[in-house]
Amino acid sequence: MTPNAVDVIKAKRDGGRLTDEQIDWVVAGYTAGAVAEEQMAALAMAILLRGMDAAETARWTQAMIDSGDRLVLSTGGRPLVDKHSTGGVGDKITLPLAPLVAACGAAVPQLSGRGLGHTGGTLDKLEAIPGWRAELTDEQIRAQLAEVGAVVCATTPRLAPADRKLYALRDVTATVESLPLIASSIMSKKIAEGADALVLDVKVGSGAFMKTPEQARELATAMLDIAAAHGLRCAALITDMSVPLGRAVGNALEVAEAVEVLRGGGPPDVVELTVRLAREMLALVGLGPPHGPDPAEVLASGAAEPVWRAMIAAQGGDPDAALPEARTVEPLLAERDGVLAGWDAYPVGVAAWLLGAGRARKEDAVDAAAGIRLLVGIGEPVVAGQPLLELHTDRPHSLPAARAALAGGPRLAPEGAPTPGRPPLVLAALGSATQP
Amino acid sequence: MTPNAVDVIKAKRDGGRLTDEQIDWVVAGYTAGAVAEEQMAALAMAILLRGMDAAETARWTQAMIDSGDRLVLSTGGRPLVDKHSTGGVGDKITLPLAPLVAACGAAVPQLSGRGLGHTGGTLDKLEAIPGWRAELTDEQIRAQLAEVGAVVCATTPRLAPADRKLYALRDVTATVESLPLIASSIMSKKIAEGADALVLDVKVGSGAFMKTPEQARELATAMLDIAAAHGLRCAALITDMSVPLGRAVGNALEVAEAVEVLRGGGPPDVVELTVRLAREMLALVGLGPPHGPDPAEVLASGAAEPVWRAMIAAQGGDPDAALPEARTVEPLLAERDGVLAGWDAYPVGVAAWLLGAGRARKEDAVDAAAGIRLLVGIGEPVVAGQPLLELHTDRPHSLPAARAALAGGPRLAPEGAPTPGRPPLVLAALGSATQP
Repeated sequence: MTPNAVDVIKAKRDGGRLTDEQIDWVVAGYTAGAVAEEQMAALAMAILLRGMDAAETARWTQAMIDSGDRLVLSTGGRPLVDKHSTGGVGDKITLPLAPLVAACGAAVPQLSGRGLGHTGGTLDKLEAIPGWRAELTDEQIRAQLAEVGAVVCATTPRLAPADRKLYALRDVTATVESLPLIASSIMSKKIAEGADALVLDVKVGSGAFMKTPEQARELATAMLDIAAAHGLRCAALITDMSVPLGRAVGNALEVAEAVEVLRGGGPPDVVELTVRLAREMLALVGLGPPHGPDPAEVLASGAAEPVWRAMIAAQGGDPDAALPEARTVEPLLAERDGVLAGWDAYPVGVAAWLLGAGRARKEDAVDAAAGIRLLVGIGEPVVAGQPLLELHTDRPHSLPAARAALAGGPRLAPEGAPTPGRPPLVLAALGSATQP
Repeated sequence: MTPNAVDVIKAKRDGGRLTDEQIDWVVAGYTAGAVAEEQMAALAMAILLRGMDAAETARWTQAMIDSGDRLVLSTGGRPLVDKHSTGGVGDKITLPLAPLVAACGAAVPQLSGRGLGHTGGTLDKLEAIPGWRAELTDEQIRAQLAEVGAVVCATTPRLAPADRKLYALRDVTATVESLPLIASSIMSKKIAEGADALVLDVKVGSGAFMKTPEQARELATAMLDIAAAHGLRCAALITDMSVPLGRAVGNALEVAEAVEVLRGGGPPDVVELTVRLAREMLALVGLGPPHGPDPAEVLASGAAEPVWRAMIAAQGGDPDAALPEARTVEPLLAERDGVLAGWDAYPVGVAAWLLGAGRARKEDAVDAAAGIRLLVGIGEPVVAGQPLLELHTDRPHSLPAARAALAGGPRLAPEGAPTPGRPPLVLAALGSATQP
């Protein structure tokens, strides 16, 4: 019997499982327009409230993949390994990570969408580099992977078009927050991309979509289950996003910080997470220590920087060009003496967004130069009047709101008070192939 | 702060209450097109799965009423009292009831929609009468109420237009079965109609939308709560629909049976329910016994028939015209001797629908002559080969399917076996103003 939309919605509404046939039919019908937007909206809400089990979610993912093409990126050369982060404040890890993993012998195809969020997505960050372009043809992607070993570019519209359509619908119908739909959305694009392996960075904390470790673990497990069902080698790290990553939040500011890291410097947390993710990625494709190079040493030696320069240049960017700078840079001053007990990622992210670093709607542009530079590390002493951070913006009218948003950003403790330091970066590893 | 659709959906999705402001805004926005179909679909599914409390449902109903006009039907003469039935197999009660209540001194404005279902709605039944028309202007309704005392006609598009739009959406998104949405849909139109009082006939059993007495009681309570919140005098009967009402199922067949009842005859269950509902209606407007006439006596005397004739004639119908008859009438024969232990309403309804008495989609026409006549009463003995019922149709190709559907319709018990008789008609009365 051919399914019909009302019966499929009813099945999920009443707490049942969707059959493979129902899932295939409803996703294909939605892609083709035979299942109406309002029907998919009702189904998405039913899925959000009733859930989908691992087998349903795997099939849903397959149906999303089948709505479009699969990329064949393999050139028979290096193994292909990708990373996906669920995103957070100051998360520029892809920028040093892709060249680093390429420098260690794997190839990294990272096809990204443009995120909504506190700060731009990875593409927005790279677009701060004069001349750099996100759009590549399949042939250009393959050539760059073979020659440079790393590509960060815009996803093609032919990958999982059902996901693009469904995401736009979920965005206006309060159905974004469904764990199986989040997991299948991420994984359908990654599987269609055709990498050999994938490492997931599932962020948790005030600056992340997942607020509790339980939620993050649940999402990571859902994604690992999908990967297993599709034969994709996959590992997941659950990492802290209660504190911004590094000292820079905002597109050009983050590129500059990434370059520091690629030159062997940069903030220790960015270095640590970059190396840890590189180890996971290399281990999944059999290129890590003890037989392969140690990414920590490669990064510290600066050997990944030439790969970065080649990767930027291959996409039209000038790695030596000056990055955009904001016309207005203002400090936020400490109101009293004390010690910096912590930075709260959420208010810092919101402030950067208000200054112009992120977008509220897909159509909005981001300001490349806007953002925040944190000047004081956790655990460091401060004196009244000392600048704690810099606000960078070309929208000076946004400064009062950004300052107000930052009220809870820096946490000052009385002088001499014990501070816990930066929280551990990696909270858990699931499916990890590296030694702990 | 102005609400926005995503926040309203989220509030309900997460199990919260909708505020008055949110309800007003979302219903008005939906009516005007500012809230998209897919957003209302997601909200309807969240309401179905999360529920609405009595205050939310009352406000939702108000917002539906406010999406259109209110009718002012009062002419300063007789009190206006209406009845609403949730519908069932052979439910032609409106046909004798409206003239009966008018004959007892009240005025009955019954504005109806066209139902989907086993058999047509009340309008479909009356349209079996040659010349009768359902569409009246407000002025014609008022004039007929003043002169005849009873009007059964099509609802105007200006009454609760949000309900019409929402009902069409719910129909394709598997969100029909939300109790607060069912209750507010019914009550918004009844309240906008402007009657002084309303009696609800909530049917329960295999031939009704509500399958259990608990569901029926819950729906009745939700509707009584809405009535109370809007100052509408209201009572509800919960009545049996496990067995068809009367002996006739199908539009013209039911009209003929109604006329028998109006002439003082007809099946006892139709008479009993008609009288009981009339008593409730009259009691609500202060016209019942002991001061007013007893509807049982009025009906038995045939005094309601002239009102029926006037009501039909006022809307262009010829009360003396022959009713349409089906070209094919076939019996269903008893396969063995025994006693008729029961009629199951659902298979009888489905068979009548297959024969052409009801519609599957709004656009479908109904066959006025199609339907089923039950020839044997519950508890009566039957012999093998005796006709149990007649199938009336102009679609003879539908007969095998109708016969198959009827497999469980008549329940035959061995000769001499005790039979429980017809189940009690009125299972409960809520808010009733009559003596039990």
